[in-house]
Amino acid sequence: MRNSFIPPERILMGPGPSNVHPRVLEAMARSTIGHLDPKFIELMDDIKSLLKYVFRTENEVTFAVSGPGSVGMETCLVNLVEPGSKVVVCINGVFGERMKSIVERCGAAPIAVEDEWGKAIDIQKFENALDANPDVKVTAFVHAETSTGAKSDIKTLAEIAHKYDCLTIADTVTSLGGIPLLIDEWNIDASYSGTQKCLSCPPGLSPVTFNDRTVEFIKNRKTQVQSWFMDLNLVLGYWGSGAKRTYHHTAPVNALYGLHEALLLVKEEGIENAWDRHKRNGKLLVKELESIGLPPMVKEDERLPELTSISVPAGINEAEVRAKLLNEYNIEIGAGLGTLAGKVWRIGLMGYTSKEENITTLVNALKNILNN
Amino acid sequence: MRNSFIPPERILMGPGPSNVHPRVLEAMARSTIGHLDPKFIELMDDIKSLLKYVFRTENEVTFAVSGPGSVGMETCLVNLVEPGSKVVVCINGVFGERMKSIVERCGAAPIAVEDEWGKAIDIQKFENALDANPDVKVTAFVHAETSTGAKSDIKTLAEIAHKYDCLTIADTVTSLGGIPLLIDEWNIDASYSGTQKCLSCPPGLSPVTFNDRTVEFIKNRKTQVQSWFMDLNLVLGYWGSGAKRTYHHTAPVNALYGLHEALLLVKEEGIENAWDRHKRNGKLLVKELESIGLPPMVKEDERLPELTSISVPAGINEAEVRAKLLNEYNIEIGAGLGTLAGKVWRIGLMGYTSKEENITTLVNALKNILNN
Repeated sequence: MRNSFIPPERILMGPGPSNVHPRVLEAMARSTIGHLDPKFIELMDDIKSLLKYVFRTENEVTFAVSGPGSVGMETCLVNLVEPGSKVVVCINGVFGERMKSIVERCGAAPIAVEDEWGKAIDIQKFENALDANPDVKVTAFVHAETSTGAKSDIKTLAEIAHKYDCLTIADTVTSLGGIPLLIDEWNIDASYSGTQKCLSCPPGLSPVTFNDRTVEFIKNRKTQVQSWFMDLNLVLGYWGSGAKRTYHHTAPVNALYGLHEALLLVKEEGIENAWDRHKRNGKLLVKELESIGLPPMVKEDERLPELTSISVPAGINEAEVRAKLLNEYNIEIGAGLGTLAGKVWRIGLMGYTSKEENITTLVNALKNILNN
Repeated sequence: MRNSFIPPERILMGPGPSNVHPRVLEAMARSTIGHLDPKFIELMDDIKSLLKYVFRTENEVTFAVSGPGSVGMETCLVNLVEPGSKVVVCINGVFGERMKSIVERCGAAPIAVEDEWGKAIDIQKFENALDANPDVKVTAFVHAETSTGAKSDIKTLAEIAHKYDCLTIADTVTSLGGIPLLIDEWNIDASYSGTQKCLSCPPGLSPVTFNDRTVEFIKNRKTQVQSWFMDLNLVLGYWGSGAKRTYHHTAPVNALYGLHEALLLVKEEGIENAWDRHKRNGKLLVKELESIGLPPMVKEDERLPELTSISVPAGINEAEVRAKLLNEYNIEIGAGLGTLAGKVWRIGLMGYTSKEENITTLVNALKNILNN
């Protein structure tokens, strides 16, 4: 007979999942109730209102997609992109590339604005692309590139997009709860995030938000949304604000218990305080890493405090170092993805992971491993 | 300040979710580890092997899609259906209709074989449809219609489909773990299920299985799969059997802890014993309901033991009865869907919910409510 799975106790300092707050774990173990139970509908309303708080938005259409961040990404794109249209997609890492691939699968033509991995999106190149393609209606970019640790100025990107009468989709998977993100003030039209980064929650859900203009745009589509599961017109029958919620799919009840508790934790801390904590610990990590000869890859003004990429020193087998950290110290850090595979380590300080003691533990462990 | 959500303790006797086994809830509250952690990869392998056990299959491509059953359904269809093709879809309830809608969204033409809700799929009509459409390559049908409680003979449907050289997609959301389902012996080519029915697990994941012929068929597609998230060619880089697992999306780690524990429970009981338990309790429920004047809607040889639809007696406000059950007895039962809305109640005895004491509790409660 096989045995129950007892996971090791890891310090999760990779690009996500981050460590989950004990209160969130406890919440997920509570008794399951039905997805149409009036008490559950109340919980959904509470989650919507807490998500508005963390997204800094009044958007009525703010909820959690029943799938990981990639489903949130695809939900935004399949609803906003029609076959035959053109979409400006900024690519400065893995997730911009993923958006491009989804745009293609929607039967649309992506216009790629490419930047070097590890750098912010170039504002001028973005504007040039819009200028050269007056028929573009939708643009997409990543706020915090999880594959590199670079932050882009999505406030300015949104300003430019609106100058050209375009809608904006922002990937905020690694930024929500970790760095300032002001959906309404910055005029971001649609955004998707994840639960397993700065919200101290397990992976599996994708918070999303859409403003009225975007909902209107979707309602005026000429073609049907290609995904049944992701079609906002259908999902909103369940997550919408009407008195009567109609069955669409069976929501992941216990995962939503967890998200609710995680959002309460952000509210209790205060989101500005959460941003400050991530900022403070990010700076400390860089300082400590520099002191052992490991400088960050991304330049300071484009660097995410919650995710730091460092170049692997010459002559070091990067996978061996990660394996030692995991097996001897129970610390997980991330490898490079795509063009950065084998070249960088990605160190996360997100959500519940973002605390001083984890920095000290990691830097000491790295010092020991690299000096032996 | 808002409060943590403490759900009421319900007896979940609707069409799902069913009650979750305490060991499953406990498993989900264990510490999160990374989705690429070697220990997690071991867990994934264990889940695959346990899923093969419950599906009664040796299919290498057997895993859990990171989304609820509807995502499993869409995953099967978007991978198997190409634009411009014809697909025979059997419709005898809500879920057949959902499959039809997805086929249309794939740019294909569904050929609907329609039967009355509450009845099994008519074998002869299915064969006639295949006979009349020699260019059909894919067929889809539901084993256990959750909207009605009717069971179809998918063994015979698969035999006929193969006679016409067609692949078969079977919805086994409400059958897996509850009634005999023999993927290999019955030659079912692709199937998707859910965790929140007879597996005593919360909603949120969709176990799927594909045989070699189906995987080959997908590899030979002329067009790209329209969904990035559901594209099996990509997902299998992560869930596949190769030594190196590549990142596709971040798996819902804690939900998979729960599924693993739920599958262990089925293995410990023995799947044949689980089928017997569901059968025994289903019969008892019908006998008890008949004794208070509530006969089942579906005829005996097509009736699911794990889900019983009963017609609402004339003059009874069905929603009021359900509300009383919920508010006064903490018992959830299901309403009718689609054409059966307002006309039936659906009573589930699935997974951990399927035990004698729940039957007694429900029947006594119904007796009290209907006599007052």
